[in-house]
Amino acid sequence: MDKDVMKATVREFRLFSKLDETQLDKLVEHAAVTRIPKGGMFFSENKATQGMHVLLSGKVKLFKLSEEGKEQTIFVFGPGEPFCLCSTFSDGKMPANLSALEDSQVMFITPEELESMVHEDASVLLTMMRVMSRRLKEAMEMIDSLALKQIPSRLAAYFLSQQQEGNVELGMSYRELSKIIGVTPEALSRTLKKMAGDGLISVDGSRVTIEDMQGLEDCREGRL
Amino acid sequence: MDKDVMKATVREFRLFSKLDETQLDKLVEHAAVTRIPKGGMFFSENKATQGMHVLLSGKVKLFKLSEEGKEQTIFVFGPGEPFCLCSTFSDGKMPANLSALEDSQVMFITPEELESMVHEDASVLLTMMRVMSRRLKEAMEMIDSLALKQIPSRLAAYFLSQQQEGNVELGMSYRELSKIIGVTPEALSRTLKKMAGDGLISVDGSRVTIEDMQGLEDCREGRL
Repeated sequence: MDKDVMKATVREFRLFSKLDETQLDKLVEHAAVTRIPKGGMFFSENKATQGMHVLLSGKVKLFKLSEEGKEQTIFVFGPGEPFCLCSTFSDGKMPANLSALEDSQVMFITPEELESMVHEDASVLLTMMRVMSRRLKEAMEMIDSLALKQIPSRLAAYFLSQQQEGNVELGMSYRELSKIIGVTPEALSRTLKKMAGDGLISVDGSRVTIEDMQGLEDCREGRL
Repeated sequence: MDKDVMKATVREFRLFSKLDETQLDKLVEHAAVTRIPKGGMFFSENKATQGMHVLLSGKVKLFKLSEEGKEQTIFVFGPGEPFCLCSTFSDGKMPANLSALEDSQVMFITPEELESMVHEDASVLLTMMRVMSRRLKEAMEMIDSLALKQIPSRLAAYFLSQQQEGNVELGMSYRELSKIIGVTPEALSRTLKKMAGDGLISVDGSRVTIEDMQGLEDCREGRL
């Protein structure tokens, strides 16, 4: 990626919104960019890491893998989102596997650059703290969902969290969605049909429309 | 709690290890302490919060509750551990419920005190970031466990993470342990008997001894 294009891109990211021109120039100058083709792996669990990764473009997923090859997606990241900061600030090992859902570009900032950036402007640290806080809350919701919720309730929670004006653009295959919800593709398909049959949603390709907001909220809370 | 006793207590906490005498005095002077009797609730999910809570003594659990009253424990906190920082740095709402496993004392630091502490010494922010990073990794392990692991594997992972020189002091009832592992008390009891029968562990009251470290590691990885 051209340095000018990169600068224009990262300038829009909330993470770097407090940086001035000189800091942005420095950031872009030292950053390394890696391309990951759709479906490609970027790293595996326990890989050593330091510094900071930020997604420049595309979409990636962080996932755990069982001995039998079953996947559970933990987070999906979009442009502007830093990831696996928790490794840098704890044991220096990646917490899970990362692969690309779309052609993606990742920016890497070295530990030295990160430290100098934080040193110059501590607000970056506060922004990282906010990002990590939000993720921790999301992870707790996921634990709640996996341990205590039925499949329709999990799916309703997902649609409600992703909807904009009653519409959800999946932006991924139903197979990928099943790995987020933590079910088999077959169970997902059955549940979607049931929810559509009950008039809660309608499905058109990769677009889901919420037809009954209150009903879907009741479904999420296990009241339906 | 007497202010001198409190100062001597918090001085030992890693979170405050960089504070000098004046800062410690200030911290203790402004802190409010709440006692929670064993079994008592401290707060419910979504309660508004700001500032920082640190456990002074005892043991508490953070847990989610289903519509039907089923519990899933997310974290257990001991003395010196701050909790629910993620709420302060995100939407200001408690992520789950908190109750005491033993008679406990919680110190509360107001948002103003917290800000002034961070302002005087940014290393507190870095320590909080490390704590949150570790929790986020633990939460991801729990997602992995709930979504992809069988009960013996989850239990093996728990014992291995908690053991010291081959021994695990539970420090809680088996009923509480079942809420951490995410199983019914009956399934936990069956699994414990099976693991003891297989020579992996032996159980004596609330003490579990690991008899076969390699075997238990294989069990955790689903290879047994």
